[in-house]
Amino acid sequence: MRLSRYFLPVLKETPAEAQIASHRLMLRAGMIKQSAAGIYSWLPLGFKVLKKIENIVHEEQQRAGHIPMLMPTLQSADLWRESGRYDDYGEEMLRITDRHGRDMLYGPTNEELITDIFRSYVGSYKDLPLTLYHIQWKFRDEIRPRFGVMRGREFYMKDGYNFDLTKEDALHAYNRHLVSYLRSYERMGLQAIPMRADGGPIGGDYTHEFLVLAETGESEVFYDSEVTDLTFGDREIDYDNVEQCQGVLEEFTSRYARTDETHEEALFNEVPEERRRTARGIEVGQIFYFGTKYSEAMNATVVNDKQERVPVHMGSHGIGVSRLLGAIIEASHDDKGIIWPEGVTPFHVGIVNLKQGDDEADAACEALYKSLTALGLDPLYDDRKERAGGKFATMDLIGLPWRITVGPRGLKNGVVELTCRKTGESEELSPELAVQKVAEIYAGI
Amino acid sequence: MRLSRYFLPVLKETPAEAQIASHRLMLRAGMIKQSAAGIYSWLPLGFKVLKKIENIVHEEQQRAGHIPMLMPTLQSADLWRESGRYDDYGEEMLRITDRHGRDMLYGPTNEELITDIFRSYVGSYKDLPLTLYHIQWKFRDEIRPRFGVMRGREFYMKDGYNFDLTKEDALHAYNRHLVSYLRSYERMGLQAIPMRADGGPIGGDYTHEFLVLAETGESEVFYDSEVTDLTFGDREIDYDNVEQCQGVLEEFTSRYARTDETHEEALFNEVPEERRRTARGIEVGQIFYFGTKYSEAMNATVVNDKQERVPVHMGSHGIGVSRLLGAIIEASHDDKGIIWPEGVTPFHVGIVNLKQGDDEADAACEALYKSLTALGLDPLYDDRKERAGGKFATMDLIGLPWRITVGPRGLKNGVVELTCRKTGESEELSPELAVQKVAEIYAGI
Repeated sequence: MRLSRYFLPVLKETPAEAQIASHRLMLRAGMIKQSAAGIYSWLPLGFKVLKKIENIVHEEQQRAGHIPMLMPTLQSADLWRESGRYDDYGEEMLRITDRHGRDMLYGPTNEELITDIFRSYVGSYKDLPLTLYHIQWKFRDEIRPRFGVMRGREFYMKDGYNFDLTKEDALHAYNRHLVSYLRSYERMGLQAIPMRADGGPIGGDYTHEFLVLAETGESEVFYDSEVTDLTFGDREIDYDNVEQCQGVLEEFTSRYARTDETHEEALFNEVPEERRRTARGIEVGQIFYFGTKYSEAMNATVVNDKQERVPVHMGSHGIGVSRLLGAIIEASHDDKGIIWPEGVTPFHVGIVNLKQGDDEADAACEALYKSLTALGLDPLYDDRKERAGGKFATMDLIGLPWRITVGPRGLKNGVVELTCRKTGESEELSPELAVQKVAEIYAGI
Repeated sequence: MRLSRYFLPVLKETPAEAQIASHRLMLRAGMIKQSAAGIYSWLPLGFKVLKKIENIVHEEQQRAGHIPMLMPTLQSADLWRESGRYDDYGEEMLRITDRHGRDMLYGPTNEELITDIFRSYVGSYKDLPLTLYHIQWKFRDEIRPRFGVMRGREFYMKDGYNFDLTKEDALHAYNRHLVSYLRSYERMGLQAIPMRADGGPIGGDYTHEFLVLAETGESEVFYDSEVTDLTFGDREIDYDNVEQCQGVLEEFTSRYARTDETHEEALFNEVPEERRRTARGIEVGQIFYFGTKYSEAMNATVVNDKQERVPVHMGSHGIGVSRLLGAIIEASHDDKGIIWPEGVTPFHVGIVNLKQGDDEADAACEALYKSLTALGLDPLYDDRKERAGGKFATMDLIGLPWRITVGPRGLKNGVVELTCRKTGESEELSPELAVQKVAEIYAGI
């Protein structure tokens, strides 16, 4: 993309309403614009990152054997009356009446709707196991929306639901989700720690939240420092292998790691003192096994191999897709702006032309742009007639991990400059080598 | 995908509520499930086609230089009061009150919101031309939703908005949209004819609707039969070339082609009688140039090169993404089911194992599955223990354009059968050649 043809409305001023770094930076970098309290438009740069995160979630869910579909944003109130949650949910549920006076709502989650779909079509244990998921806009009418996309009212979420014959099978589905979530977050450059959580209104005894450590997190967290040494890495996983998935669960959840909701001081004190940590965390996902809570209430049953009709065992599993943008920025920024991890960066590399209008500099930039694009990379070329300082400030603000700087002086020596946003380190190298190096960085991402 | 692990709830019975073929077939093929009047869940097969269509729209819009972003589903009523449309829109607008008593609405379209975004950031003619678009769920509270996704209440639409300094520039944007729409529809296997249309509540003198001819269309259309001979084909187009885009507009709109709303009998009678056609059509898109209607009402201005502040010239341009599934099926089906065009088919090819459990047949199917997948193709392998008749009926119903049939008898002669869904023609060939042929069919699609 050539910046002169893009829509990147960066702000010089820091918006007064933004209290935390991610909110400030998303506004300043022209990623979002508030259109109503807690409701945002995703400007082109923000939309691009949102799609990258969504794609990672899709890929990892499908790798785990989970099947994508899509439920609507608006739901009929009837299903929620059947589960008993219509009255329980309180004012956070946005209730709507249509022109015929029917009670509707903007879905805050989808246990009822997916259970209705399941019971409409599935009747035999032979059709199990089954895990369906979707990524869709949801609405929670927060009384005080704040922190930008971190606590918006209209938000984008992946929610998946497993249907299994037995508790054992459902716990394997639980473990598959845990593994696929670990992989997803790591691909986004995040360390998200699974912590034992509270069931809340969805219910369930087995539930873990995934938390990203950050000063601005809404939850206080308590953990054994060994949990931050764990990484999933690029190990091979067979999602059909029950023991293997269970092994990952044990590896990642056996040490103490809890939020303030489930924290037990006595247990925490059993962790050696030098490894006890207290910090703040941002919740970016949660997995639940809740057994037959919804299947019994809504009569979602299958016939088992003894010809008995039994309610299915279910769980639900969520990733906060839009919220993740905020979490990633909270975990990765500096005074100058955002520092995108390579896995989610909106553009792979920025090209800064120090002397737009200079034939040689323009030609070198065009050649770089074409070479990078030909390799399947997605560069952002700042081809505006601006001074270098302004161009650097914009690139630093929007946080592309790599920048190639092209100027007449370097070109005389046959070199351009490749700069790492995170370390600030630069090296001079030929344009060809710069392209090759960027391609190597992104190989396999 | 192996069918034994997929969720494809095909129905044997024809649902009574469905009046037209596309609605019946989408229900029977397990693509959608109604969750409330005019509101559908997209089951896995339907979701897959929806995404294919969405991707074509994204690719063609970006090829035309239009910039993707995303506006929210819910909007504040204030902006609609500013444009004067809040009261005009009538009962089709779903009005919502949030917990603080604020008036909101579920966006049926986005002229107001995009104009607000534009005026918040853009102040100079130097930032023009600019075309922003998004693909988002919308809601129109139809009094009698029907025909499945063709006339739903919650629907998925691409809407794009151009901002230009002059009428001339805005008409070039109009032409770019016309060209990109022609390309998009053709990639979906559709002939959509641009017809002069009526401005309706959006307003505007320059507007064309794109109509797909089908008996079940909601509009009566009148046209010169020469328009159905026109195809865009794979010609090269430079979207910056004003004359070239204007030439395409003239080529595709100079002959008589109108809906009942704009039909003029006297003009129609000037078409030679043997070329006059009357038929029915399904609207799958519309483009508008409406000048300064919204920019004046909402004060969206830029400073021009004479330092004068002038309202921008705008247009809006929509493609009915979810409705297109219905339109494609109306245009392409037979008694047995759907016939997907290759560009939007949910899976590229079906593999039918005639004797599941037979070692040789199973191994041959697995090998085919792996070879196709390795080439980047997406096969659906029916690996269920069902009789052949049921497997063929399912494949015909869900409409994959190509099917490879594998059975012990053929394998003895070293052959499998490749069948074209549309013509019903089959040929016997080696598994390797079958894979090669399928790969050739999809090369470049």
